[in-house]
This record gives sequence, C-alpha cells and structure tokens, in this order.
Amino acid sequence: MAGPIVTLTTDYGTADYYVGAMKGAVLEVCPDAEIIDITHDLPTYDILEAAFTLALASSPYPYRTIHVVVVDPAVGTDRRALLVSGDQHYYIAPDNGVLSFIYPKQEKLAVYHITSTHYFRQPVSKTFHGRDVFAPVAGWLAKGVEAAKFGDLIEDYVKLNVPKAQATGEKSWKALVLKIDRFGNVITNLAAEDCPALFAEPTPPFKLTLGGKEITKLVPAYSLGGQGEIFAVLGSSGYLEVAANRNPAAKLLGVNRGVEVLLQLG
Amino acid sequence: MAGPIVTLTTDYGTADYYVGAMKGAVLEVCPDAEIIDITHDLPTYDILEAAFTLALASSPYPYRTIHVVVVDPAVGTDRRALLVSGDQHYYIAPDNGVLSFIYPKQEKLAVYHITSTHYFRQPVSKTFHGRDVFAPVAGWLAKGVEAAKFGDLIEDYVKLNVPKAQATGEKSWKALVLKIDRFGNVITNLAAEDCPALFAEPTPPFKLTLGGKEITKLVPAYSLGGQGEIFAVLGSSGYLEVAANRNPAAKLLGVNRGVEVLLQLG
Amino acid sequence: MAGPIVTLTTDYGTADYYVGAMKGAVLEVCPDAEIIDITHDLPTYDILEAAFTLALASSPYPYRTIHVVVVDPAVGTDRRALLVSGDQHYYIAPDNGVLSFIYPKQEKLAVYHITSTHYFRQPVSKTFHGRDVFAPVAGWLAKGVEAAKFGDLIEDYVKLNVPKAQATGEKSWKALVLKIDRFGNVITNLAAEDCPALFAEPTPPFKLTLGGKEITKLVPAYSLGGQGEIFAVLGSSGYLEVAANRNPAAKLLGVNRGVEVLLQLG
Repeated sequence: MAGPIVTLTTDYGTADYYVGAMKGAVLEVCPDAEIIDITHDLPTYDILEAAFTLALASSPYPYRTIHVVVVDPAVGTDRRALLVSGDQHYYIAPDNGVLSFIYPKQEKLAVYHITSTHYFRQPVSKTFHGRDVFAPVAGWLAKGVEAAKFGDLIEDYVKLNVPKAQATGEKSWKALVLKIDRFGNVITNLAAEDCPALFAEPTPPFKLTLGGKEITKLVPAYSLGGQGEIFAVLGSSGYLEVAANRNPAAKLLGVNRGVEVLLQLG
Repeated sequence: MAGPIVTLTTDYGTADYYVGAMKGAVLEVCPDAEIIDITHDLPTYDILEAAFTLALASSPYPYRTIHVVVVDPAVGTDRRALLVSGDQHYYIAPDNGVLSFIYPKQEKLAVYHITSTHYFRQPVSKTFHGRDVFAPVAGWLAKGVEAAKFGDLIEDYVKLNVPKAQATGEKSWKALVLKIDRFGNVITNLAAEDCPALFAEPTPPFKLTLGGKEITKLVPAYSLGGQGEIFAVLGSSGYLEVAANRNPAAKLLGVNRGVEVLLQLG
Repeated sequence: MAGPIVTLTTDYGTADYYVGAMKGAVLEVCPDAEIIDITHDLPTYDILEAAFTLALASSPYPYRTIHVVVVDPAVGTDRRALLVSGDQHYYIAPDNGVLSFIYPKQEKLAVYHITSTHYFRQPVSKTFHGRDVFAPVAGWLAKGVEAAKFGDLIEDYVKLNVPKAQATGEKSWKALVLKIDRFGNVITNLAAEDCPALFAEPTPPFKLTLGGKEITKLVPAYSLGGQGEIFAVLGSSGYLEVAANRNPAAKLLGVNRGVEVLLQLG
C-alpha cells in the first residue's frame, strides 16, 4: 500500500528553510505522501535548465506520480500556477515554461490554471508559493482531489523556445551546449534522432567542432576513451555528449552552456 | 496508514557518512518511519542559524511529527540531550539553545532531559550522538514509547539570547541582518509585528539604512522591483527582507549576517 | 507495514538529473520502496572513499535493507554488476571494489554477478547503469525477487587493497589519513583495535606526528580540547582522528588524504 509519490524540483538550495517548509506543507495535507527530492540545486531562476532536468529525471516514475517544480522568479506577480495532467504523471509548476519539455511528449494533456485558493496554505506569502500554493495543491491532489477541482482548463500556457539542433546542409548540423554536468561532461542539444547516421555502426567519419577544438572519435562509454583524449559519446539523455575518461571535458575544452557545436559527417 | 514522520536538521553536510548513519539508526528502531531531510547544510556549529531554520522549516508539518536537530559542538560533554513535547510536534536536540524559537510558541510545553540510556545505540560514541542518542530516541518515540519514559522534566533548559529588533524612537528601529539566503536576499530580524505601519497600504514614506546604502521602496514581491534596484519586501519568514529582482542584494550591498539595519518611518 | 528500504550512495552530485532518474527507476518497479539518500556527494570516481563511507553509513540499517552504490567510472565496459547478500543487508554495486569494507564483515556472504537483463530498464544506456541496471534490480529485489534469480554466484569479485595501519616496532605504528570530514576532522586508518593501549585509561604518553606537527594529547570528545589546540580523539568510525575544538584541524595542519601519520607510544 504505497503512499502517493510527490517529487520536488527547485532552485531553493538545501541550506535554507525553504525545502523543509515545502515538504512540511505537502505532508501537512497528505501525511502519507512519499516525498522524493529530485534536485534543489538548480541554478537560481534558470527555467531552461529546470525544464531539461525535470524532463530527464521525471520520466521513470510510476503512474500517478506528482512532480512539483518550483523555479519561479516571478512569484507573487500575476504569472499563473499550473496543474498539468499528462499520460502518466501530474506536474505542478508556475506557468513560465518550466514544463516545456513535458508538453510535447503527452498524448493526453490537460493544463489547469490553479485558482481554487481554498486549497492554499493561508496566509499566502507573496514570496514563497512553493510552500503556500504548490505544496498544498500537491498534497490535496495526492489525497485524491480531482485535477479539475483546482481551476479551469487553459490552452495558452507558456512554452519556452527550446533551442534545437539544426541541419545546415545535407551532412552538417549546428547545435549548442545545453548543459555541463557534475563530471564535466558536455551535453549538447543534438539528439540521437537529429542525426541517426552518426550513431550507426561502424561510426562514420565525422568532425565535431566546439571551443576551437575538433573531435573525431566516438566511443560507446566514457571509460573506453583513451587517457587525456576528448571524444563524443551518446549520453543517457539521448543527446550527443562530449566527454573525457575520468576528466572534465568542459574544463579541458574551456566551454560553457550556450557554446556553439558544429557537426560535419563524412 | 502513514508511517511516523521524522525530520532531520543538522550541520553534518551531505558528503560524509554521518547523515546516512543517522537515518539508519532511526530506521533500525522504527523501519516504517518516513525520514525527511530539512537540511544538513547549516553552517557548522551555528546554533542561532539552526534555531532560525528549524523554526521556519518545521512549522507546517503534521501533528506528531518528530523533529531531530543536531548542531552539537559540545557533543560528548555533560551538555544534556532533550526531548521536547510541544503543541503539535516533538523535538529532539542537544540542550544548547537550538530550540529557542520553538519554546515561546508553545502553549503546552514539556521538556524532558533524556537519561534513559537503554534507548541509546550501544556503544555510544562520544563524538556522534546524532547516530547513537538522538536518532534511536527518535526511533523509539516514533514507535510509540511515551515521551516521559526518556527522562525527567526540566525547567532550566538553555535559551539563546535571540537578537531582536528594537524601537529607538517613536518612528525608528534598530535591527540587524539575521541571515542571507541562497538568492542573496537579506533577511533582517525586524518582524512584521515590530512595525506594522511599514506594511500598511499604501506604504508610508520610510528610509532603511544598511551597508551604507539607503532603501526607500517596498514592493510586495521580488520581481516587482525594477532592474538593478534594491528594495524592501515582507519575506515569507514574517521578517523584513532587503532584496533585488533576480540579483543577490547581499552582494550588491556588501552586507553579511550581523550587519546593523536602521529603519526610519515618515 | 513498512515498505522495503532502498538506500542510495553515489558520486552523481545533486544538481543533475541522475539522482532523480535513479530514484524514479527504483519506484517504477517498486512504488512502495522507501528511498533513503546516504550521499550523492562522494568525490567523483573515488572508489575508496565510497567504500569507506558506505561501510560506516550503512551498518545501522534494519534487516533486509537494500544498499545501492554507484561510483562507476567503468560504466558501459565489461566490468560486472553485483548483487551481494550479506548477514543483514543486500548491496547492489559495480564490481570495482566499492564493497571492499563490507565483504570481510559478513559471516554469510553470497555474491551474484547480475546477468538477468530482463530485470533491466530498456534500452540500457551505456553511460547510466545507475538508472538502467542498478536501480531496477534494487526495485525487483525490493519487490521480492530472490537474489539468485539475478545471476550466478561468483567468488572472484574485486577487492580493493585497503591501506591499513602497520606496526613498525613494539610501540610504533605507521598509518595514513583516510579522509577529511566536513568539520576538518582528520580521520586516520589507525583503528582502535590496532593499538588498544592508546585508548586505555589513563591515556599513556604518546606522540602522533603528521604534517610536520606533533600531537601529544588525547581527549574523549571534540569540545574537551582547549581553544586553538590540536588533539587526538577516538572517532565515531572506530578510527583515530586528529581534531580541533570547533576548528578544522586538517586546515590548521595543512594535511590531506594520504598523508603519513606516525604514532609512538611511551
């Protein structure tokens, strides 16, 4: 008899009272919820990074998991609060695009604008909707309140303009660095399906250019690269990565998020 | 059928074995406890910050939640271990003032000096009561052992001299910076009830001085401040904050905890 | 009716999607598992530190706890994945020595090489077995699948050459610094049982040399050392530590992991 699962994804950090209060506000309503930390260490105010992280972290959870996402620079303004019902999961978040990677993956999608203030924690602070709006709504949803009770369906929710890799010729693509992870792996926005030929076996000749360096080797796993070598690898995110064996490729290359990545096949 | 909730608030950090061992020592006694991390990233040995964080993070939790707080520079000496039964929650902590914000809020308060060593994990390390004293006591309490079984009631528990904002004239107050949060927001110790006039609508003319700068604007929410502007805001803690829109006000002002804050109305 | 407990110990950090995805992949299989974070902040690729942390953090957990450990620089190569059944707990980890402190403590030990790929999450990424191999195996084990179903028993699992303190004379030992903790305490690899005489009462005369300094005082607890003093203490790990009262001894001494420690009694 598992309790309902409520995951949290925020930019609150872990040193302040915010995360603890938010968990309390879920449990206050639904004491048998299982609270799962996805991350609280997102870069502050960084909606794109939050959207990317949520999409990849949230997908394996079981049916009816409730994902609460709070990266919310406009808290206290008239930006809307959303409750989204997807194929498998619920998502509760500010309407600022943080669910942009989630929307296109759903066959059945219902987006509710949360307006039923009687589900909020009172008084509602204008600076901490994580505790006073998003957490208690998650609690009530976990307790079994139907999604439609929280507000009206809307269609005009905010979608980020997510940067996508683009074909610039028959055998060339322009992409960018989407994220650097803890290991210094450089995650690009070139998805496996953008260029299936690159991932064929045997690997075709190719040239990847970023940070003024050229990479011409692709390996199946990080530790199959040579000592000191920088190489390409298909990451667990489904995107092309640039990595080094037990070394931070991002530092070796001197690249950061946003840097241009060019791919040339053949 | 929710398991009992046990929250943890420590200065142990998250990179060592301490937090993992402490959780294990709760679950060893009470395997169906739900363990909730409030924070483990408190500044080391910082009892005041721990007290403040605990007070704000712990308040929303459901009835009978057990809060374990271990910031314990005097571990292994004759400082006492406490089990506190309040109106809604239990608190287990060293007797060093870390519960100072909790005591005055309770109508019914019972403070027990934990002396029943048969509830401890044996052998008790003199350097890790988090694992060997506080965690197993939380486990036994979660399992249903009555609070009075752990030791005798005491009255002379330690209370911190919590710094409070003071009126220095009919329309002037002297406060200080209580905390800087992850976003660089400057949380002062001027509570809304210390100066209700400041928070009236419309906002009266006022001058707030800290770090050599003057602030004369109050906004309801962070992102209602202008670009580059530093302003006052009523924080979710109930205290006056000084903040900037998506920028770290503490850095912009060059202020740290303990810095003096002067408020002049009119 | 406690759910099965699954602990996680990784070097994934907490800012990326890895930890969230891994938790989801456990819960996807076994939604009533209680997920416990031991740590995700291990130094990257550091198998020895992971082994040490796991051993100390995991020991208090209740019977049948499942510990998942992923510090896995060779992910995606032919290094084996292991499921270990010990006296009290299960361990799921890559076969790289990360369980080296666990093996010798078990009276009954069964080490299975995980090969039953139908328990994996498909498709298996070659760079993220935490999500696609270790987590789902933990989920299925938590759900009640017998350990022997996951693969064959092996005997030739990898054991680290764990550095041990050595007697260099009748009253002298050579040890080294095993770890620096968050408080700057210097944890050596000299176990209490290596030199019981040092921990007798009263403390015998002794000289401990490290980082060019000599330490001649042993206290029972950190805060029983004087202001500014550096002293020895028996740590909660069972190893000799060098510490300072509310100060980082490692910094004061200028020592790091691996530094030599010499002990002379009398």
